Amino acid sequence: MAYNFASDNNSGALPEMIEAVRKVNIEHVHAYGGDEYTDSAISCFKKIFGENIDVHFVFNGTAANVLSIKALLKSYESVLCAETSHLNMDECGAPEAMTGCKLVLLPAPDGKIKIKDLDEKYIRLGDQHYSQPKMVSITQPTEYGTVYTAEEMKAISDWCKKRNMFFHVDGARFVNAATSLKKSLKEISADVGVDVLSFGGAKNGLMIGEAVIFFNKTLAKDFKFHRKQLMQLGSKARFISSQFEVLLTYDLWKKSSSHALKMAQLLAQRLSQYPEVQITQKVQANAVFAMMPKEWISVLREKYFFYVWNENTWEVRLMTTFDTSEEQIHSFCAIIESLRN
Amino acid sequence: MAYNFASDNNSGALPEMIEAVRKVNIEHVHAYGGDEYTDSAISCFKKIFGENIDVHFVFNGTAANVLSIKALLKSYESVLCAETSHLNMDECGAPEAMTGCKLVLLPAPDGKIKIKDLDEKYIRLGDQHYSQPKMVSITQPTEYGTVYTAEEMKAISDWCKKRNMFFHVDGARFVNAATSLKKSLKEISADVGVDVLSFGGAKNGLMIGEAVIFFNKTLAKDFKFHRKQLMQLGSKARFISSQFEVLLTYDLWKKSSSHALKMAQLLAQRLSQYPEVQITQKVQANAVFAMMPKEWISVLREKYFFYVWNENTWEVRLMTTFDTSEEQIHSFCAIIESLRN
Amino acid sequence: MAYNFASDNNSGALPEMIEAVRKVNIEHVHAYGGDEYTDSAISCFKKIFGENIDVHFVFNGTAANVLSIKALLKSYESVLCAETSHLNMDECGAPEAMTGCKLVLLPAPDGKIKIKDLDEKYIRLGDQHYSQPKMVSITQPTEYGTVYTAEEMKAISDWCKKRNMFFHVDGARFVNAATSLKKSLKEISADVGVDVLSFGGAKNGLMIGEAVIFFNKTLAKDFKFHRKQLMQLGSKARFISSQFEVLLTYDLWKKSSSHALKMAQLLAQRLSQYPEVQITQKVQANAVFAMMPKEWISVLREKYFFYVWNENTWEVRLMTTFDTSEEQIHSFCAIIESLRN
Amino acid sequence: MAYNFASDNNSGALPEMIEAVRKVNIEHVHAYGGDEYTDSAISCFKKIFGENIDVHFVFNGTAANVLSIKALLKSYESVLCAETSHLNMDECGAPEAMTGCKLVLLPAPDGKIKIKDLDEKYIRLGDQHYSQPKMVSITQPTEYGTVYTAEEMKAISDWCKKRNMFFHVDGARFVNAATSLKKSLKEISADVGVDVLSFGGAKNGLMIGEAVIFFNKTLAKDFKFHRKQLMQLGSKARFISSQFEVLLTYDLWKKSSSHALKMAQLLAQRLSQYPEVQITQKVQANAVFAMMPKEWISVLREKYFFYVWNENTWEVRLMTTFDTSEEQIHSFCAIIESLRN
Repeated sequence: MAYNFASDNNSGALPEMIEAVRKVNIEHVHAYGGDEYTDSAISCFKKIFGENIDVHFVFNGTAANVLSIKALLKSYESVLCAETSHLNMDECGAPEAMTGCKLVLLPAPDGKIKIKDLDEKYIRLGDQHYSQPKMVSITQPTEYGTVYTAEEMKAISDWCKKRNMFFHVDGARFVNAATSLKKSLKEISADVGVDVLSFGGAKNGLMIGEAVIFFNKTLAKDFKFHRKQLMQLGSKARFISSQFEVLLTYDLWKKSSSHALKMAQLLAQRLSQYPEVQITQKVQANAVFAMMPKEWISVLREKYFFYVWNENTWEVRLMTTFDTSEEQIHSFCAIIESLRN
Repeated sequence: MAYNFASDNNSGALPEMIEAVRKVNIEHVHAYGGDEYTDSAISCFKKIFGENIDVHFVFNGTAANVLSIKALLKSYESVLCAETSHLNMDECGAPEAMTGCKLVLLPAPDGKIKIKDLDEKYIRLGDQHYSQPKMVSITQPTEYGTVYTAEEMKAISDWCKKRNMFFHVDGARFVNAATSLKKSLKEISADVGVDVLSFGGAKNGLMIGEAVIFFNKTLAKDFKFHRKQLMQLGSKARFISSQFEVLLTYDLWKKSSSHALKMAQLLAQRLSQYPEVQITQKVQANAVFAMMPKEWISVLREKYFFYVWNENTWEVRLMTTFDTSEEQIHSFCAIIESLRN
Repeated sequence: MAYNFASDNNSGALPEMIEAVRKVNIEHVHAYGGDEYTDSAISCFKKIFGENIDVHFVFNGTAANVLSIKALLKSYESVLCAETSHLNMDECGAPEAMTGCKLVLLPAPDGKIKIKDLDEKYIRLGDQHYSQPKMVSITQPTEYGTVYTAEEMKAISDWCKKRNMFFHVDGARFVNAATSLKKSLKEISADVGVDVLSFGGAKNGLMIGEAVIFFNKTLAKDFKFHRKQLMQLGSKARFISSQFEVLLTYDLWKKSSSHALKMAQLLAQRLSQYPEVQITQKVQANAVFAMMPKEWISVLREKYFFYVWNENTWEVRLMTTFDTSEEQIHSFCAIIESLRN
Repeated sequence: MAYNFASDNNSGALPEMIEAVRKVNIEHVHAYGGDEYTDSAISCFKKIFGENIDVHFVFNGTAANVLSIKALLKSYESVLCAETSHLNMDECGAPEAMTGCKLVLLPAPDGKIKIKDLDEKYIRLGDQHYSQPKMVSITQPTEYGTVYTAEEMKAISDWCKKRNMFFHVDGARFVNAATSLKKSLKEISADVGVDVLSFGGAKNGLMIGEAVIFFNKTLAKDFKFHRKQLMQLGSKARFISSQFEVLLTYDLWKKSSSHALKMAQLLAQRLSQYPEVQITQKVQANAVFAMMPKEWISVLREKYFFYVWNENTWEVRLMTTFDTSEEQIHSFCAIIESLRN
């Protein structure tokens, strides 16, 4: 069985990442991020996202999201986010348990939250019986492979700023959004008013590692203590930071994400030829959501493992990555064709 | 400036670790630990520690310790441990904040707790006003580079079992204890009644990664949920588990730790020649604690960075690792000799 | 301004409660619940709810609910409850912050959850990424003044038992449900399979105090420690327990709640005469929900304060209590009549 | 058996408290502290402690202490306090579990912390591995019945202010300290630089209730949300606030505490006549600590229950209260005399 369409988490790492850790594996350096390799990686982030940022490395995406909340909110404040968000559906209650904050859920049939729904949940200010709205969190690209435009992001950011609320972006696959929108990473973060960004590593070709980027340094002043207390401070920091440096250098992230997106388009195009298959979400990043005959699924999964997203509708999720090949897509479709006959 | 005596966290990784991650960087596999490489690493642990164990990987030592507590204790229970323990002094309050449990501190001038002090803190059972004693945690080797004998461990374990308490070992440098005692890893864990062991990776040559080993599987039944909620579940698990497999295979851990311990002995022996230097703790693992003239310290630290442990007594800590060389020790002592003249 | 229709929290206490605390205010007794008055109150509960219960007193309703969860769930487990529940809307995030557990919300336009919605949220068992469903919590009577029948409660309880889940009832106004259903307190708790009940005091005529009743003693074994750690253990326990004893004795609760319910019926009947007023929920307990012309509301609130429940629809909530008088209702309606002219 | 020397928690309430709640038990008022009785009690506090304070009511002393910490500290900050403090010994880990903050313990053989010990624990500022010292908490009078002088309090306060740390006082029996020192309540709180005071009610004659007083309003800005989330907001607030108003009016607190202190002096004086009895702490408030022959204790406790403080030394604690009578003391001593023969 192959896992190629299951998740970008199932892929290995870009070969450049092995090389990155090999290269920094010399001599003793200060631990816990006080080393030159980590300094260099941070400079790299600043060149891309702006000099005014503060960036910190953590171990996984859940931690990047949770620490973003912990750094900015008090335990009696709440985060407005999509019902379908990773924060709500896939972090085993970590946001609530680690921060005490409440998640207030918004409908998001296409993964994207709408301003009118934010309006509806912006209630009971000053009422001590109610967790106070203080942050909006979106996933970009969303869990459904859709992408907010820069204008949509700016509108949410403006909405937040008017209410003295923070704007967080869960960017586990953020590079894919930039590629999809043909924008720079800065144009869809700093430039549209994001306060804090979980910038994914593992889903974009790293072995391990995520970054939390604050676009206003004063927001990050307690971060290092929270990171340590929430058990996200790594001792040999260079082995994570060096991978990020490589990802950001020579546009490696662009090459990888462009490939993954191209493969998603190809997959969607091939699937759309079959009348039995219905693409259920816009294919804007590296995911294809589709409904197909239930009896196909088990056959297809024998060869290519992937997840059934909704067991009632038999909607499935197919993910592409930096190493998805055209051959795999054609081979996958060949199985479908054999099933159709 | 070199950092060779500052900490085993300042070293890089064993070259075998780079090779380990390179080797598993092929194809897609299940994420989150459901992969064959992780299975294989777990088998490796079982061969060494016994078939009845349950082993899980996490990102750092603080997390290994905290999750050991979280898995076994309720929030109103307490951990008896040394005042000097990492748990108390170096985890930024994570044990209390993440579990709600109280640390009850015992004196430990040589890093080791004593049965009579346990007796003194075993109080107020059933009293709802008082956190109930439920775990003893020791560090092996201790933060002072001393080592509990197998008999001492057994005595603490027996004390615990009589009281229906758990016995946790913070083994950030556990392999060094085994080497020091000329025992197998099992002889100083499963065989002396340890319930749960934080088995260190990063301090023993890994790039990243620690293991939590339960010696009774039923104790681990909730572990995976706690690990996820406490943000310690890695997606591409193979890149951590494969390093452990290599560490445990072909006695790589023995070679590395034997070298580090030999270097500590050499360093201690060289230092003991100087009447101005006083070795303050038994040198049983890879640390040498010593008091020396205050004015030497800044000169020595210009060339070799290391930590002053106690600013009142000018006691310093010198650590050796797998890559400490005799030349470094002789060069370090040469500086001392020049200072004596 | 009078507050008579605002909330049962706005009322004073039954005069019997002042007499209750006066009577026990003699001599020294053991603190923290080890006194004869508290023993006597507990016996009273057992006579009513069954000998097998375990009952504990706490300070407020939020605490009764939160401690019910804390006693039974682990931090990675979740509570299925109505979107409109007090637990979700009026406890400032205490359930999540104090227990780490997630609330999974069900639609409840009439305040009552439906089995089919429970089915829909009973998902992802064993999946470490997802908080595991372990408790269903209902409010009886609901926040909308509606009442689950005993059969409906039994159906939810059966659903829970089949899934090894716990069934919690937030009974802030539980006596009103019994009165409404013409059932004994036991018939709608122990007899329909409730595991733990927050049994309200303050909303039923006490000055202060709530009880948490476990219908299976083994579930309560850690309760006293959790209560202390969550800061709900009172020293002079007799001043709360004695009030409960009085409430439960000589059917004082029945008299009070019957009066409150009768007044709610009278108010609803009077209001339903006016074509401009629309009763929006069934009036089954001591609340009347109604929509009325927006311009009436401020005039009415000058004399009788009450809450606007929904600012979009101008739905208001009118509560009756043990001391609501027919005169107040007629006087309230007289204002309406003057407004209609 | 009588409990008269066991604890001030074992006493009933001053009869004035029953009268207080009876008087406010009229009509409906706003719940949750928005009522005129609570306003009036707050005015009373301001007359005594200064106009600039912010005062809030909670249910018990543990909550007053914990909420003082929660309001002022972040979870990675620590509280320096006596080993013997209620915070450490009698709150079942609530401070750590509810705030995440660490308690750093200071020796206090007489219940009082010393500046030199504060100095010793004021370490590792800015070090992310270590909980950062941010508050000093003392108990006044201490758990040993000793009293800090105003000058000692001022010295601790100055020490704090120089380090930008907060000064908290656990004043469960604060009125006794004022009486003992012949100072006003303000002279040993606002005037000596206290930031936040847990002002006890239950131990000073109330049925229930404690107050948290902030001497700088800006420190209290989040308090109401924390209080609600930590489940300490009472609905019928008047029944607590009215008791405080009575306590503070007509010097009721002075009369009660003067009596209790006079009785403690009498008891100490009587006990000191017996050569077998050794008074172990200065008797400055309402507690007498003494060692006496072990075989006496069980006989004495048959008639008058009291606590053995230290089972190794047979040190006992005898408490007096507002209702301790000379007769009880003489009767207690009569038993001793019979034992001596």
